[in-house]
Formats: sequence, C-alpha cells, structure tokens
Amino acid sequence: MGKTKGNLAIGQSGGPTAVINSSLCGVIHEALAHDEIGEIYGMFRGIRGLMDDQFLDLRRQSAEVIDGLRRTPSAALGTVRYKVNPEDYERILEVLKARNIRYLFYIGGNDSADTSLKLHRLAAAAGYELHVIAVPKTVDNDLYGTDHCPGYGSAARFVATAVRDTGRDTEAMGPVRPVKVVEIMGRNAGWLTAAAALAREEKGDAPHLVYVPERPVSVEQLLEDVQCCYDEREHVVIAMSEGAQEAPGKTFGEEYAPTEVDAFGHRMKGGVSDFVASIVKGRLGLSARIDKSNYLQRSFMVCASPIDLEEAYRVGRQAVKEAVAGHLEGLVTLVRDPGPEYHCSVGLASLKDVANKEKKLPADFMNEAGNWPTEAFLSYARPLLGDPWPPIPYVRLAKYFV
Amino acid sequence: MGKTKGNLAIGQSGGPTAVINSSLCGVIHEALAHDEIGEIYGMFRGIRGLMDDQFLDLRRQSAEVIDGLRRTPSAALGTVRYKVNPEDYERILEVLKARNIRYLFYIGGNDSADTSLKLHRLAAAAGYELHVIAVPKTVDNDLYGTDHCPGYGSAARFVATAVRDTGRDTEAMGPVRPVKVVEIMGRNAGWLTAAAALAREEKGDAPHLVYVPERPVSVEQLLEDVQCCYDEREHVVIAMSEGAQEAPGKTFGEEYAPTEVDAFGHRMKGGVSDFVASIVKGRLGLSARIDKSNYLQRSFMVCASPIDLEEAYRVGRQAVKEAVAGHLEGLVTLVRDPGPEYHCSVGLASLKDVANKEKKLPADFMNEAGNWPTEAFLSYARPLLGDPWPPIPYVRLAKYFV
Repeated sequence: MGKTKGNLAIGQSGGPTAVINSSLCGVIHEALAHDEIGEIYGMFRGIRGLMDDQFLDLRRQSAEVIDGLRRTPSAALGTVRYKVNPEDYERILEVLKARNIRYLFYIGGNDSADTSLKLHRLAAAAGYELHVIAVPKTVDNDLYGTDHCPGYGSAARFVATAVRDTGRDTEAMGPVRPVKVVEIMGRNAGWLTAAAALAREEKGDAPHLVYVPERPVSVEQLLEDVQCCYDEREHVVIAMSEGAQEAPGKTFGEEYAPTEVDAFGHRMKGGVSDFVASIVKGRLGLSARIDKSNYLQRSFMVCASPIDLEEAYRVGRQAVKEAVAGHLEGLVTLVRDPGPEYHCSVGLASLKDVANKEKKLPADFMNEAGNWPTEAFLSYARPLLGDPWPPIPYVRLAKYFV
Repeated sequence: MGKTKGNLAIGQSGGPTAVINSSLCGVIHEALAHDEIGEIYGMFRGIRGLMDDQFLDLRRQSAEVIDGLRRTPSAALGTVRYKVNPEDYERILEVLKARNIRYLFYIGGNDSADTSLKLHRLAAAAGYELHVIAVPKTVDNDLYGTDHCPGYGSAARFVATAVRDTGRDTEAMGPVRPVKVVEIMGRNAGWLTAAAALAREEKGDAPHLVYVPERPVSVEQLLEDVQCCYDEREHVVIAMSEGAQEAPGKTFGEEYAPTEVDAFGHRMKGGVSDFVASIVKGRLGLSARIDKSNYLQRSFMVCASPIDLEEAYRVGRQAVKEAVAGHLEGLVTLVRDPGPEYHCSVGLASLKDVANKEKKLPADFMNEAGNWPTEAFLSYARPLLGDPWPPIPYVRLAKYFV
C-alpha cells in the first residue's frame, strides 16, 4: 500500500431503499481496486457514527457478504436522520483527522446532499484535503441534477405491482366495496404516486385516478372525479400521494395527520387516505377501503427493479472513481442518453447546485385535470421499472353473458 | 352430448385471493372432461348473479384465457358478500330449474359454505336433484374440516416476505424509528399473523412479537414485551393481528375501529395498529410506525405460493369429480399425509360439519406468553409457503468495529 493517500468512510442516510446496499457494494468494490485508498470504514448509522467514532471495518467482511449486499434491502450500515450543526464541526474534523479519512461517501437524498456539502465546506475551510462525494438515493425521486434517483425504480415497481393487484381485487368486489384508496410515499413530490399509472395495461384498468402534491385539487373536484369513475365501471382505484393537496400548501386531511416532525423539520405525512376514504363514504355514500403499505414501498425486495439495482451499484463505483480522480465534492448523477433504447450514463454535479432543493414533477407530466400522468411521464418512468413489466400477464374473462 | 345430465354453475364469493381463479380454472378444466356436464355458467358476482340470472358463458372463453386464470389474482367472475335469506329461496330454485343447473360449485370461505349448505337443503326440500360442492378459499385459514385453505399459503408468503423486508428497514433505522407495527388480516383467527414468524431466519430477526386474537394480552403486558425487545436490540417489529385482543372479546383499540358491519354481521376490523403505535409512543416514548398493506395480503401475485396455486387448482378439479361421482353436497378438503415430506391428498367433508364454524389457532400453536408461535405451528405453516423460502438470501455485515 505504498501509494495510500488516506482512508475511506462510507455512510448511508435517510430512509432505506431496496437498492441502497447495492450502492454500498459498488463503493466497496471500487475502493478495493484503488491503492490510494487505505482502510474502508463503514459509518455505523450515518454521520452520527462518524461523530461517535463508530465504524465497521469493511475490509474484514467476507467477499460473500459484500456481494450479498446487492440483493439485500435496507441500509446494512444502519441509517440516521440527523441535521449537522455548526457545533458538530469541530468533532467531525477531529475524527476525520484522527482516522486520516480523505475519501468520504454519503449515500442519501436531499438532506444527505446537504450534509455532504457541509462536510466539504468544513474541510475546505480547515484546509483539510477531503473528497466528499454524495451517492444519490431516494424513493421520492426528488433530487436535483440527476435524471432519476436509485431507489425510485424499485419503489415504482412495487407501487405499480401493488396497484395492479389491489385493482383486480377492487374490480372483483365491484359495488360491494367500490372504492380503494392507495396511499403512496413521496413527501412533497408526486413521482412515486404517478408511477402507479404504469399498472394500467388497458382502458379501464386500475388506477383510475392519480393525485400528486404538485397539482392540488379541491375536495369537490375529487368527489366529482370519483363519482364519474364509479358511474362508468362501478369501482374506483385512487393512487393518492401522501402529500396530495386540496389547495396549495394544504395537504388533504391535515387534521388527521400525525404532528411529528423529523430532524430536518419535515412534518411526517399520513392521513390523506383516511381523509379521502371518509369523505367518499360520507359524501358519496360509497364504501371505501385503504391500502397503506408504507415501508414496504421502499424495502420490498422481490419487486426490486433489475435496472435500478444495477444503476445503484454503478453510481457507487462511480463515486469512488470521481474521488480518486481528484474531485473534492459532488453528487453522482444519472444522465439519460438520447435515443429510443433506455440507457443512462453517469455524471457528476456540484453539491452546491443540488443540495437543499426538491425536484418536483414538471407541469407537463400531469394532465390538465390534475388526475392522471401524461404520456411524457409514462415514457420517462416505464424503463426504470425494468423488464419484464408487467411481471406476470393476467387475463380477464370475456363478458359473454348467457 | 348425449349423456348430458344438466348444466353447471360456478361462483366465487367473499374476499378474493391470489389463487381463487386457479380453483375456477380447475373446475372448468375438469368440467370440460365430463360429458354429463352441459353448459358451464359463471355466476357474475356470486349468488347474486345466480339470483339475477346473470351468467357468463364459460364454454365460449378461449383456452388461453382459461389457462391464464391460474396466474391471475382476484375473482375473475366478480364476487359478493350476500347472506341468502329464506325469501330468496323461491327465486334461486326458479333460476336453477330454468337453466337446468344440476352441478353447483361455490368457491369461498365460511360464509360461502353456509350459502352452499342452504342451497343444498333448498334443493333437497324441493326434490330437485342438485350437486352442491363448496371449494375452500380464505386467506384467514379458518375453515373447518380441511388441513388448510387455498389462499392461505400465498397470503402467508406475502406476510412473511413483507415482515422480513420491513424488518430490515426497521433494523436500519434503529433508535430513530424503533418500533414497527405490521397489521395483518385474519378476522378472529391468528393463522395469517402467526405466519409472520416464518420471516425469522436467525435469532434477533424480525418479527420480535406476534399477537393473535386467540391469546389476549393486556396493554401492560404488551408494553412490557415491547420495552424488553427494545432494550435488547433497539428496534422492535410487531406482527399484530387485526383482531388481536387485550381481553377476551375486546379487540385492541376498538374505539379506533370503523363501525361498519358486513352482510353477515361481521364488524370490520382495523385500528389495532394505530392504537398500538399510539400507546407505544405515549407510554414508552418510542417512535412507532405502521405498515397496513391490507388488500395486498390477499392479492399480491408475485408472492403467490407455488404449492398454494397448485392445490387451489386441484381442489377445483376435485369438486367436479365429487359431484359427477354422485355426491349431493360437500366441501372439498385438503388432508395432510403423514411423513416428513409435505403432501396433501384431497377429501370431502359434509357441509353440515363445516359451515358456520371458525377454526381458531390451537392452543399449542402459541407459546405460553402469547407472543410467539410454537415450533408446532411453524412446522405446520412452513411448507405452505412453497419453495424457495426465503425467496432471496440476505446478508448482514459482521459487527467488526474499528
């Protein structure tokens, strides 16, 4: 190890996904190929692990375990929600120096990019050479600077699978239990909810209505939409973003939602589906049911998208390459190549340009009524689910009545 | 068709499952092999379809569609929740006669067995020759007379998969979000909830606590269990039956539950997980989260158990064989063969012995504390999930701290 320039620390942050360990595996695999890198430290539970000097020795792990990360959901290093404060800077710098950490990788979403940027600035101000590269991860898909985020494709695949199946269930129940409200993650962005639309193979398939935070619809409009769908086919499946709004800034059923706030000041979502089910029942007299699969959306491994798993691994490897090539800071990005066949290249954005921003669904990704994604969105999202989609072909009996 | 004795009607009833169409396919395939059977009518939405003389002509369906039923979840004929009343008898008999229906198959659970028994008695009283065979179906697994019910294995596989994955998610969050409550279907029986325990591969894996309706535990005991698990590993995953009780006859958090009642007078379940999450937070100060995947439990096709799919098909075929052999009434049953290798034979129980009963978890299927299933249960349930279980091998990083 004559050429060793320093040690590496890698952490995972925020909500886990089905593929975040695939990125971890990519970082480790690439790190093992570079003599510049000495020890490979895994921060136990993100930045808090660094501050507490709690690291796992990743060089001691067996090759089988490292490889197995590519098919293991959730965050193997443990994760954290912690907002780094100026009071923490001294301690962070102390550990970085004591451990001679020169390469730092942080896998996460918006808040993690913010943390990475702070670490970069902190090191730069102290004149301590540190390469900080953020690795994108979030099922919400709301990171700036990248075509999409690893984690999104797998969550989208789960959501589309779930809506397709619960849609068949609702269809069979017909007028007995005609309305199903499926509550979908995504915070203030509708990317994941919009992906539910990929469940539809033919006209009339679930979902029938899709509501996202970017396009507020009034309670009256929503009820009108539901009634209209019901009149058409006697059942209605609604894909409802946990952050769907009845007016700009006002989430549906805010009064039902928990009041908990996380370390970054984000109010916890939830309650939207309960509210919608209750007004559908109360105002339209239609029996409504709810699916709230919550954490399964980000962890359900049998629905992981093969493309997502591969890209997650690739951005992990790329992060190490960028650091070793000399970049002091950045977020690895996915850049969609032009052309009919889906393919992404990898790139690097400056953390300054991406941290503390939320990428919302563009206006042209939703229809005018605000209740269905456009073909532009569907073309964007479809390849991210991976092949084959749908996973299993279904049939319907022809309506040959006697 | 010189030997034709009459026509066949087949219906689906109650909550759909991932494999109920597999049974439908079995009935149709077997029916096509018997010259005694003339027309093959599908009741549109169960017994209501019969009463309304709404039948699909199943002989006109393509072979591809019929075969495709084996991989299509939910009830392709449409389903119903309707309790047959004496006032309906005349109309039912009228349609049976008008359509010359002599073979009647009803795929469903307890309530459907009750309907089948009524149809049998009605026909017998009227001196109308009718062969009524019920085909077992319920994710609740609470039917008498059969080792288990088609639908259960697939739902159990989904539940175990979900708990395994959300368990990894909870583990990664650690003390940040330490408690996860997974609410599981099953009405008044704990079969499906207990199957969550199959998610555990090694000591410490989720789930950590399993509560079923058959074994009430007090709020104090539950909180003590949760605290104890938390102290051990800083996170706790609870598999909670929707009908779990804090005292005999008193469901946890009844005050949170909807008051809706179905056609059979069963009160809708729900609210248990919200209640448990709120007391865990309020009393123990531990942040708790909920997964309530509801209808995905009975419809999620990528988690269908291969064995369950095959058995569901088999009981469908068997029902026709029993009817053609001359039986006037019965429920097709699965009978587990003795021996180390799992295999079930098919049998026939009298509807009189199985209708209007609920098969609960036997006492020796739960441990003394009432918070974990015994090895007797695990041995019973494991083969029903089908191979390979678990579907994907996961890894964990060795805790080599630097």
